[in-house]
Formats: sequence, structure tokens, C-alpha cells
Amino acid sequence: MKKISLLLIFTLLSLMAGAQEALWNHSDITSPEIHANGSVTFRLVAPEAQKVELTGDFLPPQRVMTPKGEQLSAGVVAMTRQEGGLWEYTTDPLASELYGYSFTVDGLRVTDPNNVYLNRDIASLTNIFIIPGRKPDDKGALYSVQEVPHGAVTRCWYPSPTLKSERRLSVYTPAGYADSEQEYPVLYLLHGMGGDEEAWLSLGRAAQILDNLIAQGKARPMIVVMTNGNAALQAAPGETAQGLYKPTTNLPRTMEGSFESAFEDVINYIDSHYRTRAEKSGRAIAGLSMGGFHALHISRYYEEMFDYVGLFSAAIRPERAVNSPVYEDFEWSLKRQKQNGLRLYWIACGTEDFLWEHNKNFRQLLDEMAFPYTFRQSDGGHTWRNWRIYLSEFVPQLF
Amino acid sequence: MKKISLLLIFTLLSLMAGAQEALWNHSDITSPEIHANGSVTFRLVAPEAQKVELTGDFLPPQRVMTPKGEQLSAGVVAMTRQEGGLWEYTTDPLASELYGYSFTVDGLRVTDPNNVYLNRDIASLTNIFIIPGRKPDDKGALYSVQEVPHGAVTRCWYPSPTLKSERRLSVYTPAGYADSEQEYPVLYLLHGMGGDEEAWLSLGRAAQILDNLIAQGKARPMIVVMTNGNAALQAAPGETAQGLYKPTTNLPRTMEGSFESAFEDVINYIDSHYRTRAEKSGRAIAGLSMGGFHALHISRYYEEMFDYVGLFSAAIRPERAVNSPVYEDFEWSLKRQKQNGLRLYWIACGTEDFLWEHNKNFRQLLDEMAFPYTFRQSDGGHTWRNWRIYLSEFVPQLF
Repeated sequence: MKKISLLLIFTLLSLMAGAQEALWNHSDITSPEIHANGSVTFRLVAPEAQKVELTGDFLPPQRVMTPKGEQLSAGVVAMTRQEGGLWEYTTDPLASELYGYSFTVDGLRVTDPNNVYLNRDIASLTNIFIIPGRKPDDKGALYSVQEVPHGAVTRCWYPSPTLKSERRLSVYTPAGYADSEQEYPVLYLLHGMGGDEEAWLSLGRAAQILDNLIAQGKARPMIVVMTNGNAALQAAPGETAQGLYKPTTNLPRTMEGSFESAFEDVINYIDSHYRTRAEKSGRAIAGLSMGGFHALHISRYYEEMFDYVGLFSAAIRPERAVNSPVYEDFEWSLKRQKQNGLRLYWIACGTEDFLWEHNKNFRQLLDEMAFPYTFRQSDGGHTWRNWRIYLSEFVPQLF
Repeated sequence: MKKISLLLIFTLLSLMAGAQEALWNHSDITSPEIHANGSVTFRLVAPEAQKVELTGDFLPPQRVMTPKGEQLSAGVVAMTRQEGGLWEYTTDPLASELYGYSFTVDGLRVTDPNNVYLNRDIASLTNIFIIPGRKPDDKGALYSVQEVPHGAVTRCWYPSPTLKSERRLSVYTPAGYADSEQEYPVLYLLHGMGGDEEAWLSLGRAAQILDNLIAQGKARPMIVVMTNGNAALQAAPGETAQGLYKPTTNLPRTMEGSFESAFEDVINYIDSHYRTRAEKSGRAIAGLSMGGFHALHISRYYEEMFDYVGLFSAAIRPERAVNSPVYEDFEWSLKRQKQNGLRLYWIACGTEDFLWEHNKNFRQLLDEMAFPYTFRQSDGGHTWRNWRIYLSEFVPQLF
């Protein structure tokens, strides 16, 4: 669109009772359009573009060579120019899932101006859409808001005397919590490196997965606590006094014992501010990648705290020698964990995951110790698609 | 960037322990970069672009002709091409504020891929940044997260027997709420047409404004309740079983009495689930545009409910004849409101607002009735910039 027409549209809209901002982006097209058969049409108006491409995790992935060997990468496809500078692409029917995509216009990666639904993963924004599916346990159905009783999600702050800091966390309380006197079990759900206390809610669809599994009677009503796993930060980007900074994975104090050794502060806050079943059989801890690492070490370190442990694509050991009591006595504390007894030690990893070998070695160690665990092997790699699946399989096994 | 280099970057990042998604957008540049003197540099890498423009509400606005006369529109300026396809623009020093902007690349409006901070206003996403300022009452400082005690924000669902629906709302509870036995006054804060229960939190920075004013001792600790003002909807886009649809201002059931006549359901839920001062002197209601209209009519309709009323750029009367008891007896009920007594009736409007005349006529009516009110005239028009200012001036006058 030319500047003059944009301005005219701004102006006309600003005359309508509902137009509340001068910075408006108007378009009558629909993108993405999800068809009844599960195929999807993407549209972008870009009359002056020479080439428009679609990148998406629903397209056939590409194998590319890297210094570390062949790796999978998101698929890319050319969009077709129609009349009036409209670019289009329609997929084959897609399976029920949550997908991500972006456009590349003459080499510039852009989001879809007609789709306000984005996920932020560290420093990158990606448009999302959901193929809803027909059955309640189709993945897209599980990740969507359904006509079921909804839990509440609170973002609040807790004091961490150990870290000498006020810190933000997200708490899901199940439907009915506010109107009951009951005590609820708690799942502590931890994010990966570069993530924060928002990650499981946005990228992981944790509230929708819990609402739907509880409504289906497949999971027990539970509280889910999502913390910020970087001990140097107080909160997600933009939610701290650091201001609106660019998120990064180059984080200090993420896998050196600080977060793990301060985890008691989280549990104390939750047990004193929520109606919890404050006992080992009422607590689970799970996490992805760095969060799986945290779950592994926290559950060892606080040896009488958790009856349920979930490691999703977990990192296993600190990459370098770290001087922290948390990582001492690795095998000995696992033996004690085994002796103390626990109800579920659930390890999940995809065959394409770059942490596959680490997890394989860890399982070998557990086998040698006769440490009881369940292994869930999946396709795919180190992706939120897998972590949503793992969460929806882990949660029904709890409490 | 060319496809191959993007793919390589995807792949290299996916080898790092922290890289959690294949859809990655990597760039080493910083945009926006806020300099010490308050000037701001915007950057975009677009080697193949012929023309890149910056649109922003900090640039000199343009006057454009429309069928309804001359109107203000956001300013636009050309960015300058540097070495390597980097486009740049640096502003003059800007006053402390929250600003919005977007880029236009060869006619295509895009968001800034290096800035993950966006506000959604109905169906449009706009990048934001904040010039923090030096003094605590600088606007940018007031809208930023500061090192002060933070309130909690909960998204929950309440039953509306009147609307025969479960509906979502947002509740801010001030710092200290969870650790006290105290009863708190409640501000009901309503959005405009096309908005929802997220609007005052994201666009309005309500949680930051409340945190900061309370910490400075300028506002009393209070609960703030943000509802969804469209009686036909249950929740914000993407938060209902309607799925991820494109938000619109073409809404049914927004200004025809349904929301107003069902407001008691909200108050009942809040008074029964939060520790409130459940009396007239402990309740305020305010809103912007359509929400100002709602605040006006709800405070008339529930005649003994609110001691404090705030109309920000309010619509005044239904646009067409509406068959609802809510809009009957307009002047008579205002007289009764006056007789019942109230502590603050605060009307704010900008001189450029398209509802200026409506507000002027309403004030004339109030003058004729000797209805006591306070009028706050501001510069500017129907914008969130004004509504943030109005909120931060209204809240210190409450309770």
C-alpha cells in the first residue's frame, strides 16, 4: 500500500467511534485462512515485492550441513503472486497441531500483518495458528480454549531470601479453586535457557492443556507453578526494572546451582499462599532442556520433596566444573532418591534432539543403578511441539 | 538476509543448548536504541529494499483531508540506507513517554524484527518503546516497571447469570494484598470499542501506573478490575472457544444495555472472591471511549454503587434508539445521582478528540443541572497516550 492510502485509511478509521490508535494497519484479507479439510491459505499484500516466501514448521523440513553435521531446519516454500500484488500459498491438509510461520519478503523476514497471534521465543516473534481437530484429544483441540471450566492464571512476586531478590512467577489454579476449601497438589514446571515465567503459558499452552485434561477427567485438578529459572533475573523481559531489553540466551547464573539451591523459597511461598497438599506425594517437578536439568538436580538436592519428576529433552550435567553443593554426590544422591522412593521418574526425548546422547548416557547410568524410570521416545528434536506433547502425557500420570 | 544464511543461522543456533525453536530470527543490530539524551535510533536490515520509512507517534503529525474534514495522522519519515543494506533513522531527543512505531518497506508495513515489544490494539500490532525519564513522575518512569513492590495480576473467569455466560476478567491486587487481612477499595476500569480485558494492562500500562503511584504514596492501595465490555463475547481474542480469530470493531452487543445491566454480576463476583470495601465509598468506575459510556450509564443505573466516576474521552449517548431500561430517564437519573451524592465525577477529553463536541454538550447539560463535576481538558485526541495520562491523574483522587 502506498503512503497516501494508508494515511487515508488511518484517518477514516480514526473517525469511527472504535478507532483508538493512529498507528493502524488495515487489510480486508484473511491470513491464515484455515479450511474445513485442514489445509491453510496464507496471504500477504506486497505489490512491490519481487519474491515472497513462507517459512513454517508444517512444511517438509530441510536438512542442512553444519559444522556439527546434518541438521533439520524449518521448511521454506515460494508464495505465488496474484492480481493486485496479493501473494498466496495453500498447504496440503495439516494434522491437528499448533504451528508457527513467518514470511520472507525480498530477503526480509516479517510477521503476518493479518495475524495478531504471535509466540515470543527468547528474542524472536513467530506467528501461530491452530488446526483444531475433531476429537477432544487431537493436539490442536487440547491446545485450544474449549467450552470447559477455566482455571485462573496469576502473575505475582515472591521473596527469595536466598537470592536476596523479589522474583516473578506465574501460577495456574484449576477451575473451582476459588470456590473450594480443598488442598491441591502442585506441579512445578520449569522453562529452558532464554525462557522465563511466561514460556510455558504462551509457547507451552500449559493453561489450555491443564483446563482440557482436567475437564476430560484425564488429569487431577492441580496448581501449576511456573518460575523464572535464571537466578540473575527477577522476571521476564519487560517485566523488570531493567526495562524493555532484547532477550538473550547469553545469561549468567542459569546452570550453576543458584536457582536450584534457592528453590525452597518458591516452595515456601506457594505452600504459604495457596491451599496446597504440602507433602512429597503432592508435589511434582518437570522442565524442558535447562528446566529438565533443573528438575533433575532440584529433585536430587531436596531429597524428600517430590514424588514425581519429569525430564523433557533435559540437559543432564553442568557443561563445565561448577563449584556448587547442588551438583556434588550425583550418583550417591540418585541412590538415595531411589531408596526414598518416588512414584514417577519420567524421561522424554526426541530422536533428533541434540541432547539425545546425553539422555542415553544418563539412562544407562540409571539402568546400572536399577533406578526405576519411564522412558518416552518421540520423533523430532528440541522443539516446543514435543514439549507440549510431553506435558500432555506427563500430567495425566500425576497425583 | 538470503535464505541460505538464515538456514545456517537457524542450524547453528539449534546446536546451542539454549536454542529452542527452528523459526529463529537473528540479528546483531539493536533497534530501537535509546540514547542518553532521549534520542532514539531505529535500524532495519533490508538489503533489497528500495525505500524504507518509519511511522511513529513521536514524529510531527500530518494533517490530512478526509470527508469529515482535516484530521491528524501519525508522522512518517524516510530512513537512510547505510552500508550493507542497513537502514537507519535517529530522532531528536524525545520527552519521557511510551511511543509506538512501525516500518514501511517498499510499501509493506512491518514490525521491527529486533524489538519483541508490541502492543495489540484491536487487530493491529505496533512496536513500542519507553523513554524512561529522570524523575519518578516522568510519564515514561510511571509506565515502566520500577524497583518497587509489585501487585499481582490475575486472569480469571466469573459467572454472569444475567448474560448466561462464563466471562473472563483481569484483576490487579496491590502489593501486600496476599499478606494482609485488610479490605481494599475497587476501581472498575473499562476499555473502548474493540478492546477487551487485556487492553488496560497492555496499552494502558495500568499495573505499572498503579504499582508506581502506590509506591510513591500518591494513590491508595486498591484492587483494579478490568472486564470485557462486549456482552456477546466471553473473553479477549484467542482466549475463548472461538479460537484465534481476527479482532474487529464490528461488534454486536456493545452499547445496547446488555453489559451495563449485567454489571452487578461482576461486582458480586469481586465482592465475594476478594477482600473488598463493599460499599459506595469503596467503589470507583472509569472507562475510555465506549468504556466511558459504560461508566456513565452503569453509575446512573446502579444509583447507590459508586462514589467515584471517571469518563475518559467518553461516548455519551447511544448512537441510535436502543430499547433498554439502562438508557431511560437519562436526566432524571443524573439528578438522583446528584442527590445521592458522590465524591468525584471526573470528565477528561482532548481538544482534538472526535467526541469533543459530545462531551461539551454533556457538560452543558450537567452545568444546567448544577451537577458537580471536574473537567480535565488535554491536548491531543482519542489516543492511549491520553488515557494513560488520565488514569494516572484519576487514580490519586480516589478513596
